[in-house]
Amino acid sequence: MALAIGVDIGGTKVAAGLVDEAGEVVAVQRRATPGHDVTAVEDTIVDVVESLRREAPGPVAGVGIGAAGFVSADGSTVLFSPHLAWRNEPLRDAIAGRLGLPVLVDNDANGAAWAEYRFGAGVGESRLVCVTLGTGIGGGMVVDGHVERGRFGLAGEFGHMTLVPGGLRCECGNRGCWEQYASGRALGREARGLAESGSPQAADLLARVGGDVSGLVGTVVSDAARAGDRAAVEIVQDVGYWLGVGLSNLAAALDPGTFVIGGGVSAVGELLLAPARDSFARHLTGRGFRPPARILEARQGPLAGLVGMADLARCH
Amino acid sequence: MALAIGVDIGGTKVAAGLVDEAGEVVAVQRRATPGHDVTAVEDTIVDVVESLRREAPGPVAGVGIGAAGFVSADGSTVLFSPHLAWRNEPLRDAIAGRLGLPVLVDNDANGAAWAEYRFGAGVGESRLVCVTLGTGIGGGMVVDGHVERGRFGLAGEFGHMTLVPGGLRCECGNRGCWEQYASGRALGREARGLAESGSPQAADLLARVGGDVSGLVGTVVSDAARAGDRAAVEIVQDVGYWLGVGLSNLAAALDPGTFVIGGGVSAVGELLLAPARDSFARHLTGRGFRPPARILEARQGPLAGLVGMADLARCH
Repeated sequence: MALAIGVDIGGTKVAAGLVDEAGEVVAVQRRATPGHDVTAVEDTIVDVVESLRREAPGPVAGVGIGAAGFVSADGSTVLFSPHLAWRNEPLRDAIAGRLGLPVLVDNDANGAAWAEYRFGAGVGESRLVCVTLGTGIGGGMVVDGHVERGRFGLAGEFGHMTLVPGGLRCECGNRGCWEQYASGRALGREARGLAESGSPQAADLLARVGGDVSGLVGTVVSDAARAGDRAAVEIVQDVGYWLGVGLSNLAAALDPGTFVIGGGVSAVGELLLAPARDSFARHLTGRGFRPPARILEARQGPLAGLVGMADLARCH
Repeated sequence: MALAIGVDIGGTKVAAGLVDEAGEVVAVQRRATPGHDVTAVEDTIVDVVESLRREAPGPVAGVGIGAAGFVSADGSTVLFSPHLAWRNEPLRDAIAGRLGLPVLVDNDANGAAWAEYRFGAGVGESRLVCVTLGTGIGGGMVVDGHVERGRFGLAGEFGHMTLVPGGLRCECGNRGCWEQYASGRALGREARGLAESGSPQAADLLARVGGDVSGLVGTVVSDAARAGDRAAVEIVQDVGYWLGVGLSNLAAALDPGTFVIGGGVSAVGELLLAPARDSFARHLTGRGFRPPARILEARQGPLAGLVGMADLARCH
């Protein structure tokens, strides 16, 4: 049973897991992301991988490292990462040289898409689009059994498609990006906007954060929606609406058989997916004359990224 | 030298060409599209192909038929065509049976994309996106040497991605589709709007159509722009702006190395492509941290669709 290690580099923490051929996580370890220093992040990756390797019941075939940002199509170089200081960083060879193991680097959302394709809600689908809803939107495509990375490795940045020209400012420098309307950040912004408006609708939400508007972040809204708070449910429905509009755009361009919706925000389940499906059905071009894609909840959970990266490293 | 026949079914005419392995059109014939009657259109296809076949200096390897609309991924069935009465029409087998030749059916814009990949501006590109600007927008992708058709054959309907939520009504039943803002129809609509506003800016445009506002269609605007009419140039620039916004969205999702812009509207050349490139550069997510895609004018001209369909039929 060949084991592989997947590493997920987040803005605040590094998660790494020892993953077997069935996609099971045999062991997992976490470290704090050591600020923005390139060498310190590399040291942390090497440390957590070596530590897992000592724990492994058998040999480790390879290491897959997932990070938010642009990774070159050959899996060698992080061109740009929004949370870290990497700019044209030859991460693969730097880490491989220190570990003496084959290393692959990829966008974290590609790892999540691959995990859903191999072990999750997308098994058997020849045209899979995975949308990971966290703070923003991560995207990945699996086409005929491989991750479609585009010409330069930058495909799948669905969250930065302009959906509302002249709309909300995005940290990518544009306006009206899809992820400003369908993400954890959107949940939080809408809740804070509601609270700041003075509406009594926000009373229960505000009570959850001790009256501190700035505490109304996406997870608070998700939790409130699951607990049945009416304002939170409406905000989740609005985000679901925009999720469906964006999915219909992806269907027009890509015609997948299945969309898998993952990431932290997807944990609200049908509260989000039901309005997303309604909106998708209402916006799909050619509706009535085509088979519609399925919209499914992800099955791989928060470790999807590292599970997929480990498997990609093993299959590479 | 194996010859193949490509057929392009338009709303008003059927064009068919005998095409050699180098993509050269050896002979071309045209017929009027006989209304919306399914059998009459099939008769016309058979008639024009038989006629070209008699003209052929050698054997014909196959027939590729391109039509606007949704074609099943296996090239057998027209699921829906906006201009014709085809609904789930098993066109491939109906025509193949009558001709005794292998037949392939595909979306016309896929044919055009393939022609540009094989013989035109997209030669050598591993991730090509072709955008055909006619009355609306046709789209096609060539990925690693094959046309990417999606799960059900409906990929590449870029023109029906929502770009302006709540925007202009589209004949697909949605609002704000890209093709309402970047197409020959957009050129005509904007020119008519300008004329109806009573602006003196429209004087030269109106003079071209004898004062009849309804005569201000896309080709009139294109011609006027090429002749240097200032209002027409501005309208083409506006369309170029929206073309660039949509291309930046496709770059975010698909990351092609090259966009090829074809179709009748593209004949205005740099008057359209220069503002499209500016707008693309301004809207591309991650600009400055990624290699930008090239935006090139198509080289295959108005027969691109049938040239590509003939070649697809031969290569199939």
